[in-house]
Amino acid sequence: MKFISFILLSAISTSSTSSSFAEEWFTQQDLEQAVQLRNQASGSPTGYNIVESLTTEVGPRLAGSDADKVAVEWAKKQFSTLGFDKVWSEEVKFPSWQRIHETGQILSPFPQPVRLTALGNSVSTPAEGLTGEVVHFNDLDELQNADADQVKGKIAFISKRMGVYKDGKDYGATVGARVNGASIAASKGAIAVMIRSVGTDNNRTPHTGVLHYDAQSAKIPAVALSNPDADLVIRQLNRGLPVSMKLNVETKVNPEAVSYNVIGEISGSTKPNEIILLGAHLDSWDLGTGAIDDGAGVGIVMAAAHYIGQLEKAPKRTIRVVLFANEESGLFGGKAYKKAHLKQLDQHIIGAESDFGAGRIYQLDANVKADAWPAIEKISGVLSPLDISLGENHGDGGPDLSPFQHIGMATFDLKQDGTHYFDWHHTSNDTLDKISPNDLAQNVAAYTVIAYLSAQMEGDFGKSAPEEEKQK
Amino acid sequence: MKFISFILLSAISTSSTSSSFAEEWFTQQDLEQAVQLRNQASGSPTGYNIVESLTTEVGPRLAGSDADKVAVEWAKKQFSTLGFDKVWSEEVKFPSWQRIHETGQILSPFPQPVRLTALGNSVSTPAEGLTGEVVHFNDLDELQNADADQVKGKIAFISKRMGVYKDGKDYGATVGARVNGASIAASKGAIAVMIRSVGTDNNRTPHTGVLHYDAQSAKIPAVALSNPDADLVIRQLNRGLPVSMKLNVETKVNPEAVSYNVIGEISGSTKPNEIILLGAHLDSWDLGTGAIDDGAGVGIVMAAAHYIGQLEKAPKRTIRVVLFANEESGLFGGKAYKKAHLKQLDQHIIGAESDFGAGRIYQLDANVKADAWPAIEKISGVLSPLDISLGENHGDGGPDLSPFQHIGMATFDLKQDGTHYFDWHHTSNDTLDKISPNDLAQNVAAYTVIAYLSAQMEGDFGKSAPEEEKQK
Repeated sequence: MKFISFILLSAISTSSTSSSFAEEWFTQQDLEQAVQLRNQASGSPTGYNIVESLTTEVGPRLAGSDADKVAVEWAKKQFSTLGFDKVWSEEVKFPSWQRIHETGQILSPFPQPVRLTALGNSVSTPAEGLTGEVVHFNDLDELQNADADQVKGKIAFISKRMGVYKDGKDYGATVGARVNGASIAASKGAIAVMIRSVGTDNNRTPHTGVLHYDAQSAKIPAVALSNPDADLVIRQLNRGLPVSMKLNVETKVNPEAVSYNVIGEISGSTKPNEIILLGAHLDSWDLGTGAIDDGAGVGIVMAAAHYIGQLEKAPKRTIRVVLFANEESGLFGGKAYKKAHLKQLDQHIIGAESDFGAGRIYQLDANVKADAWPAIEKISGVLSPLDISLGENHGDGGPDLSPFQHIGMATFDLKQDGTHYFDWHHTSNDTLDKISPNDLAQNVAAYTVIAYLSAQMEGDFGKSAPEEEKQK
Repeated sequence: MKFISFILLSAISTSSTSSSFAEEWFTQQDLEQAVQLRNQASGSPTGYNIVESLTTEVGPRLAGSDADKVAVEWAKKQFSTLGFDKVWSEEVKFPSWQRIHETGQILSPFPQPVRLTALGNSVSTPAEGLTGEVVHFNDLDELQNADADQVKGKIAFISKRMGVYKDGKDYGATVGARVNGASIAASKGAIAVMIRSVGTDNNRTPHTGVLHYDAQSAKIPAVALSNPDADLVIRQLNRGLPVSMKLNVETKVNPEAVSYNVIGEISGSTKPNEIILLGAHLDSWDLGTGAIDDGAGVGIVMAAAHYIGQLEKAPKRTIRVVLFANEESGLFGGKAYKKAHLKQLDQHIIGAESDFGAGRIYQLDANVKADAWPAIEKISGVLSPLDISLGENHGDGGPDLSPFQHIGMATFDLKQDGTHYFDWHHTSNDTLDKISPNDLAQNVAAYTVIAYLSAQMEGDFGKSAPEEEKQK
C-alpha cells in the first residue's frame, strides 16, 4: 500500500495529463469483454488439456534431445489447432548435455546406497566411479571461506536446506550451491561436489538443475542428493567418523545442438505491429515430464491467447505467444529471441511469462512507467474476483523475458502460490497429477484478462525500469 | 459400544467369579507404576533413537542380504546396550530374492520412460528386455474374468487404485493384484504383469512387495508402476491406440539363505516362565531404509521393554522382545518362531506386534477370553491420557504373531493412524524423516503400559479366538 501511494503521487506530480487520461485507458465495452473472457476461461479445461497433451504425448523434453524435437512439432500443431493465425519457429543453438547414468553409495562407516542425480552440465566421473572422503559445509559461504587443505582430494558436500515460502524466495539464497558449488570446490582441489537438493520436499527424488563451470577451475562432477539422503549423510557424519562415498556418473555433451522458439500469433486488427508478448518455455528437465516446469506455463499462455482468438472481433493489438527453447540450461531461447527481435523492441507493448507451476495467482505486479499505473489498477479490478490483489511496480516478467525486460520492455508479473512448487521442481516427480485443473484455469483466466486489456488499451505502458530508478 | 456391552453380559452369564475378580487384576501400585512409565516414555527419545540408529547404521536390510546380517548383529548389540538380560538368536531359513536392475518405457504410441519396480520374487525378463502390448484391467477380478484371447502374449496391466483410510483397510482389497496378479495373468498366457503401485501417494516412487507364484502357472515377470506412471499409461490407452511397452528386469534367488529372529528378554522376577511377547520385524525391503516398515516397530518394542527393564524391581513376568526375520517375503520369522516355541504356547500370556509405521495409536483392541475384558478396560484407562480409546475384542496381533495367535495366543492390537503409511510403504521413500519423534514416543508409552500391566496382572487373558466363535 505504501508503494502504491507513492506511485499515485508520482504520477500526479510528474505528468499533468495522467490523472484525466487514467479514465480513458479502457472502454466500458473492453472491460465488459474482459469480464466475459475471465468468466469463460476460469471455468474451462483448455489450459489443463494442453498440459495433459504435452505430458502424455511428449513427456520429458530435455533441450536438444529427440523428445525436444517432438515437442517442437507438437507445439506447432497445437498452435494451429487452437486457431492461432500465424505459427512459426526460430532457430536456437546451444551445447546440449545428456544424462546417461548415475549412482551413489556411502562406503564407510556404514555402507548404504543413496539416491542422487547429476546436475545439468556435470562432467562424468571415471567409468569405474570416484571414491573420496566427504567434507561437509553448511552453505556455499562456508565452502568459499574454507582452507584448500580441508577440501583437497575430497568430495565437498554443501547441505544448505531450502525454506518453504509462498513466493519461493529462498530459491535465490539456496541455488548458488548448485550453480557455483562445483567451481568453488574445484578451486580448492575438491574431486567432486555434492549438494543437498535445492527443493523443499522430503522425497527420495533428487533435484537436478544447471550448474556453471568457471573457465578458471577444473570441471569436477557435481551431484544433488535427495533430501532424505542428505539427512542420512549428515547423520553418519555426526557419528564423528570419516564418511567416504562412491559416485558414479556418466554424461555427455553435443556441442552443436539445435532447437526452436515456437511462436504463435493472434493477429491484431487495428494495430497488428504492436505486440502483447506471452511466454513460457517448452523444454523441460529429463527426470520428470515437465508438467509444472513448464507445461503449466505452456498451457496457461496458449489457452489465454486462444480464448482471445475465439472472439468474433480480433483484438486491436497482436497477441504473440512464444514457447521458448532451452530455458533450463541458460535462457538460450530468451536470449535468441532478444537477438532476433531487437529492432522490434518498441513494438513490444508489454510481456508476461508463466514459469512457476500451476499454483493459484494471488497478486498482480507489473513493471511499467509510473504514469501507466492507473491502467494496471483498472486491470487489477477485473482480476479481483479471481482473488488476485494489486501488487507493486517491479519485477522482470519471468526468466525468458528478462533479456528483453532488461532493455526496457514493460512486463506483468502474475505471482503464483509456489508453496509446493519446489517440492517437485526439477525432479522425477514433476508430473501431471501435481496440477489442479481449477487452479490452472484461474491462471488462464488471469492471463486472458491481462492480454486482452493490454491489446485493447489506449496509450501504452512505457518502458520498464530497474526498481531503484523508478523509486527516485 | 454395542460389542462391549455384549462382552460384559457374556462375562456375567458365563463366569460367576469374573465380576468380582475384575476388581483384582491390578494392584493400585501396579497402576501407579504404569502411569509413571507411561509419562516417562511419552516424553523420551529412546524409541526414536533406536530407529535413527537402525536406519543410519544399517539402512535397507532385505532378508538374506549382507545388510541383513549387519542388522542381526546390530540388534544383538542394541539389546545388550539397552539392558536386556538375555539376548539370543534363532535361525530362520528361506529362499532369498534379490533385485539387480529394473527399467521400463512406453515404446508407442508416445515413447516415454516410466518408473517401475520389480515385485518381490519376480523372475527376470530376457536380458534384452521384454516387449509387448498392454492390456488393461481395472482390477484383479476383471483380469480373472477375461478371456485368454484378450491376454495372451500381452502385458497385463491392473490399475486398481488404493484408497486412503486411517486404518489402511483398503490394503487388503488392493494387494491381491500384487500377490496373485502374475499367476492369474500367466494362466491366460500373459508375458508379464504390471500393476499400479499398492500405495496412496502420487510420487514417482513405485511400491514393491511380495508376490506369490502358483505352482500351476508359468512364472512371468511382475512389476509395479509408480502411481503417476500408472496414470500416464492410462492416459495413453485412453487415446484409443495400442500401447506397447518394454520392461527390463533382472533378479536372482539364493534358495538357501539364512537369517535370525533376534530375541531379548527382561526376565520376570516371580513368574519368569510366563511371557509377555512384543514383536516387530527386523528385515526391510531394499528400496528404502526400513524406517516405518519396520524400524519404527523395532524402536517401539525395544524401547518399551527397556523402560520396564530399568525399573528397580523387575516385572513379575518376563518381557520377551522378538525381532522377526524375513517378514516381508512371507512371515518366515513368525512361522519359525511358532515351530520353535510350540511347546511354550501356554507360557505366552499375551502378545503384541508393532508393524504399521509410526503414526499415533488411537485405539486399543485385544483378542482375549471374554472374562478378561475387564482387565483390558483397566489397561485402557491408563492409556486414555494418550488419546487411545477402547476398541473391540478381535484382531490377530500383527503379522508375525498371527501364526501363534491362530493357535490361541491372546493378543493386543494397538491401532495406529495409518493415513500416510501407504504413501511410503515398500518404497524408496521409507526413510527416517517420515517419523515424528513425538508420535513414536506415544507408541512407546502405550507398549510400555500394556507390557508392564500384563506382566504384573493377576489372572490371565485366556486364549484368543476367531471372532465368529467369540460372538456366539
